[in-house]
Amino acid sequence: MFRIAIIGATGYVGTEIVRLLVQHPEAEISAVASRSFAGQSFSDVYPNLKNIFNLSLSGLELDEICENADIVITALPHDASRDVIPELIKRGKRVIDHSAAFRFRDKTVYESWYKTNHGMEELLDKAVYGLPEIYREKIATSVLVANPGCYPTCTVLALAPLVKNKLVQLDSIIVDAASGMSGAGRKSELAYSFCEIDENFKAYGVTNHRHTPEIEQELSALAGEKVVISFTPHLVPMKRGMMCTSYLKLTHSNWSAESLYELYREYYKGEFFVRVLEPGILPETKNVSGSNFVDISVNYDKRTNRAIVISALDNLGKGAAGQAVQCMNIMLGLDETTGLCSPAFYL
Amino acid sequence: MFRIAIIGATGYVGTEIVRLLVQHPEAEISAVASRSFAGQSFSDVYPNLKNIFNLSLSGLELDEICENADIVITALPHDASRDVIPELIKRGKRVIDHSAAFRFRDKTVYESWYKTNHGMEELLDKAVYGLPEIYREKIATSVLVANPGCYPTCTVLALAPLVKNKLVQLDSIIVDAASGMSGAGRKSELAYSFCEIDENFKAYGVTNHRHTPEIEQELSALAGEKVVISFTPHLVPMKRGMMCTSYLKLTHSNWSAESLYELYREYYKGEFFVRVLEPGILPETKNVSGSNFVDISVNYDKRTNRAIVISALDNLGKGAAGQAVQCMNIMLGLDETTGLCSPAFYL
Amino acid sequence: MFRIAIIGATGYVGTEIVRLLVQHPEAEISAVASRSFAGQSFSDVYPNLKNIFNLSLSGLELDEICENADIVITALPHDASRDVIPELIKRGKRVIDHSAAFRFRDKTVYESWYKTNHGMEELLDKAVYGLPEIYREKIATSVLVANPGCYPTCTVLALAPLVKNKLVQLDSIIVDAASGMSGAGRKSELAYSFCEIDENFKAYGVTNHRHTPEIEQELSALAGEKVVISFTPHLVPMKRGMMCTSYLKLTHSNWSAESLYELYREYYKGEFFVRVLEPGILPETKNVSGSNFVDISVNYDKRTNRAIVISALDNLGKGAAGQAVQCMNIMLGLDETTGLCSPAFYL
Amino acid sequence: MFRIAIIGATGYVGTEIVRLLVQHPEAEISAVASRSFAGQSFSDVYPNLKNIFNLSLSGLELDEICENADIVITALPHDASRDVIPELIKRGKRVIDHSAAFRFRDKTVYESWYKTNHGMEELLDKAVYGLPEIYREKIATSVLVANPGCYPTCTVLALAPLVKNKLVQLDSIIVDAASGMSGAGRKSELAYSFCEIDENFKAYGVTNHRHTPEIEQELSALAGEKVVISFTPHLVPMKRGMMCTSYLKLTHSNWSAESLYELYREYYKGEFFVRVLEPGILPETKNVSGSNFVDISVNYDKRTNRAIVISALDNLGKGAAGQAVQCMNIMLGLDETTGLCSPAFYL
Repeated sequence: MFRIAIIGATGYVGTEIVRLLVQHPEAEISAVASRSFAGQSFSDVYPNLKNIFNLSLSGLELDEICENADIVITALPHDASRDVIPELIKRGKRVIDHSAAFRFRDKTVYESWYKTNHGMEELLDKAVYGLPEIYREKIATSVLVANPGCYPTCTVLALAPLVKNKLVQLDSIIVDAASGMSGAGRKSELAYSFCEIDENFKAYGVTNHRHTPEIEQELSALAGEKVVISFTPHLVPMKRGMMCTSYLKLTHSNWSAESLYELYREYYKGEFFVRVLEPGILPETKNVSGSNFVDISVNYDKRTNRAIVISALDNLGKGAAGQAVQCMNIMLGLDETTGLCSPAFYL
Repeated sequence: MFRIAIIGATGYVGTEIVRLLVQHPEAEISAVASRSFAGQSFSDVYPNLKNIFNLSLSGLELDEICENADIVITALPHDASRDVIPELIKRGKRVIDHSAAFRFRDKTVYESWYKTNHGMEELLDKAVYGLPEIYREKIATSVLVANPGCYPTCTVLALAPLVKNKLVQLDSIIVDAASGMSGAGRKSELAYSFCEIDENFKAYGVTNHRHTPEIEQELSALAGEKVVISFTPHLVPMKRGMMCTSYLKLTHSNWSAESLYELYREYYKGEFFVRVLEPGILPETKNVSGSNFVDISVNYDKRTNRAIVISALDNLGKGAAGQAVQCMNIMLGLDETTGLCSPAFYL
Repeated sequence: MFRIAIIGATGYVGTEIVRLLVQHPEAEISAVASRSFAGQSFSDVYPNLKNIFNLSLSGLELDEICENADIVITALPHDASRDVIPELIKRGKRVIDHSAAFRFRDKTVYESWYKTNHGMEELLDKAVYGLPEIYREKIATSVLVANPGCYPTCTVLALAPLVKNKLVQLDSIIVDAASGMSGAGRKSELAYSFCEIDENFKAYGVTNHRHTPEIEQELSALAGEKVVISFTPHLVPMKRGMMCTSYLKLTHSNWSAESLYELYREYYKGEFFVRVLEPGILPETKNVSGSNFVDISVNYDKRTNRAIVISALDNLGKGAAGQAVQCMNIMLGLDETTGLCSPAFYL
Repeated sequence: MFRIAIIGATGYVGTEIVRLLVQHPEAEISAVASRSFAGQSFSDVYPNLKNIFNLSLSGLELDEICENADIVITALPHDASRDVIPELIKRGKRVIDHSAAFRFRDKTVYESWYKTNHGMEELLDKAVYGLPEIYREKIATSVLVANPGCYPTCTVLALAPLVKNKLVQLDSIIVDAASGMSGAGRKSELAYSFCEIDENFKAYGVTNHRHTPEIEQELSALAGEKVVISFTPHLVPMKRGMMCTSYLKLTHSNWSAESLYELYREYYKGEFFVRVLEPGILPETKNVSGSNFVDISVNYDKRTNRAIVISALDNLGKGAAGQAVQCMNIMLGLDETTGLCSPAFYL
């Protein structure tokens, strides 16, 4: 059994990693650490885990954590990781990090969108963007995996076949997205209270959401040239689930729903977690919520010669915790799907 | 008191018209007619109206209905109106219709998107598109008002200032929309059952939703030339509320959030029901649900030189019943806001 | 026009009072006061009111508030009212208060359940419990109306016909209740955040909810002897609405659904806001949410000789703001239903 | 690997059994049968299972089904099972049935509450009530297990320690319950549509719900004498989850929260799926939804000398599919918890 430590375990991403790992046949959780809840039983914070997961939360005692862990997963607020990750790497631990700090190749992009000082520049060389469908080999040997953002995962996988194959006008890309509330984290803010959110739909981060440059970085890498997009996320009154509806002008016009489908099917042949839906079938978040799948439907808008790509995943699953476990499996040499074959809840 | 008859009163649009008219100081409901529920008390079908509205549902006895009504509002399934509307007009009644049949100037557009035969061509000349902010004068004297679709109302009002003033590349327009479930009507279909809808988000009608040509007709009229758009609606797990997020490439680039806001504020000066939000304020459906308002925020995406316009209304309010009552007020020479000043529910 | 000031206007009860009064034909709001939001426009805090209600929030300047108000409605946290209410009364204002301080005839009951010192004992004599269906005459001339709690309103009205007529074993009464989340107020606590509440149902305040002694006080007054009950509230993942299911052992057994219904119908004859439902019809919160109605169904459990009474109201409506406006109408000599005839939202 | 066939697999209970069994390490699904969907791929009906479960639905070809199955699980409408179950038993198959037909020892109780003719009387002798915490040994060797109803499971486990130990007045028992919508099954009825259910709470089956006699049968067996209860279920606007709040008059009064807790803890010592919560901790449905746990809190209402027992489970989990798999494990000689250790979703 591999031993996994989770630092910052009491957020929604953290508890989803716990939910996945307690069912994982080859990994066990050696420590759950939290600054706010140290000393409490994890199942007091999340009583759904009573009788199943009985570890107590430790503080951030890195020596002890490192001694008992093969891999450390960090899910800390962006800045808090600065005190932790370099120390983990120094102690020879492999790290899967959920902050944005190591997702960007160019630290100035990070610094300008996140309005902070990076401060861990020396580790940037080691960092690998943790999207297995694109960087699988690098992940396998990496000591520092930057787990991607939820919107970037949902968008990049949706657009890769078209962008990589240079089939779209790169300045035409628009991504309109919607997410369940758990993407905002476990927060006691009025704006996230039930009465303010239920029966309500709204946009946020219009023209300036931080996942924009992350999407652009990865699309640019696929295209081989700089890509700039418009990206608008919305909040849906539901707990889990994310959908991106992307619009791309095609460079030539002899497409059909079927030929686009074939392009995608071929591109994702062998990728277990990417389900390309047959023409006429559209994704629904309930089909992915609770799972590590991303469902993609590529549609052809003949009247405007646009591809309309619709992709759905669980923001806590393939958009966060599931993807982290997928990376972990790869890093440990396990079958990538180990512990990740649970179907979505549907209900 | 003006007397209003409602035919097809037991759907969600019908009952919302009843909810509005029982609070209207200058109008009273003279008849509610329904094929399915004739003979029952309206408040047996909608018990929220008990003690407030005690009329019984009649069948479609048009003579009797016409005798006692100044205006007839029809909210019938698209095809059913064919047996009713010509008869009402023949009897000299003024009609506000919720079907799509009279929204299109070109009947072939209607016939090809709705896959049906129009069959009431002789009335097309009389029909006025019931969007008061654009067709107020014509509505005032019309005998046949075609109440607009919810998505077209939400989109056309959102884009009119830019399109009318020829400030956008017309082939760049993308409308990504989301609606609460009541837009689908009162239906006993599995796909609309609570367990299938709750905690779920999905797109539908991708590349082929019937409101597309209606939006295009009105944008084309504003632009003075043919406009073709991409339009993708989604379903949100909530009862009421609609949001359209529209993307338009601007023809010149010396814009700012403030200058776009001024353009909109000026364009909608004096329009009570159109609330243009200050830069930085975004619409939320809870601020319009239950009301006749449409909230619009125009944003400037400097990086791509696009305007991103976000508009919200209540699909049953300004998107249907509220707009019908607004048209009714205009037709009757009343102040347009009579009976329509209730604030949105918020909670 | 009567002038009404609202102190503590930015909570959910406060904004519901505003929503009701902006539609009230005989009353206008002269001031909205708030410690937290003074200086802001009310419609910045609740944007649903933009274009409809344009007052700015003042601080607690009691002199100015009193000068311009015929009645002052206070919706302050229990303790905060101590600095305000005596001052209002001293200035000769009539007050409708939403705190619990004046609901109890015996201040020691208040002090032991609310674990605080009363501190306004001198006003207790003047206070009237603001349940119009029971205390209408006293309310009419009162200078200090204690607006009842939501659960007590829902329970007392449901049980009055049986208890007043001495038809039940008084030690058998069990009240099992459920409320939408707005009853908890506008709070930024983790426990009330969307992700913690949605798709979740739970009990709270088991054996010790503060509305218990309030229910008992009023049932005791009706019975003419001391009544002790078991009361268990639950939280429902919805915004508005409350239901109480009450179980009472009947003292004799020759009852039927019909005879119980007749008892209730007779008891509430002439009460506009109490809708006694016919045998076989059960309340649903959607039929009362947004309105001032309470719907009551009395059922006969022949097998156990119990009455099972089910009552529903809107915790913000008849359970708070609606009832306050009803009291206000009575105090002002207006028709009790003025401004309160809006039907429930249903949708 | 044991082979399990599921007949009536496309309902919500059926698909939950599939969800559990595809993750079960010792069992595999050999057939999924359905009258309505025969011929379709199961993952076309429930697309969350795409890539994970690729069986096609067969019709009710019992010979073929029996040939390949060690155990057959039936989840058919009450009456439909009459054509199937006797045939399965005749072919020597062991059956776990979800209908009510075999839950009652006295067929006349079944016939009068379900208003139907039993018609399989010859099998009643073989049937075991599938509540492992009470009938574990009998289940182990049974050929026909009647999987209990959701409300009876939730109630009987909650009350067993008090009733079995003769600590309560048996004529005082009141059970007030609430369930998520999936308990109503997969139905295309208006009353279950999203717009009718969301933001709504209501009682149903008042004084006559069919689970009443089932609860009474099991409580009577525990008490050793006839028990009659009052039982009122409610519908909560959520998909999964059930809570029962039960009120029982205690026969003596020297109780405390702690002593009641000790009674329960002792009674359920060693029962993995029954989590007795410490005094002061209350169940929430989110802590059990998606799992096979039942969480129980026993409270002492000193003022009335009542125990108030609150129990929560997932109506599709321990209330249906989870319990069926638990019975299946017992019948197959497996560890009872095999494949059932997933924690609840929480989110």
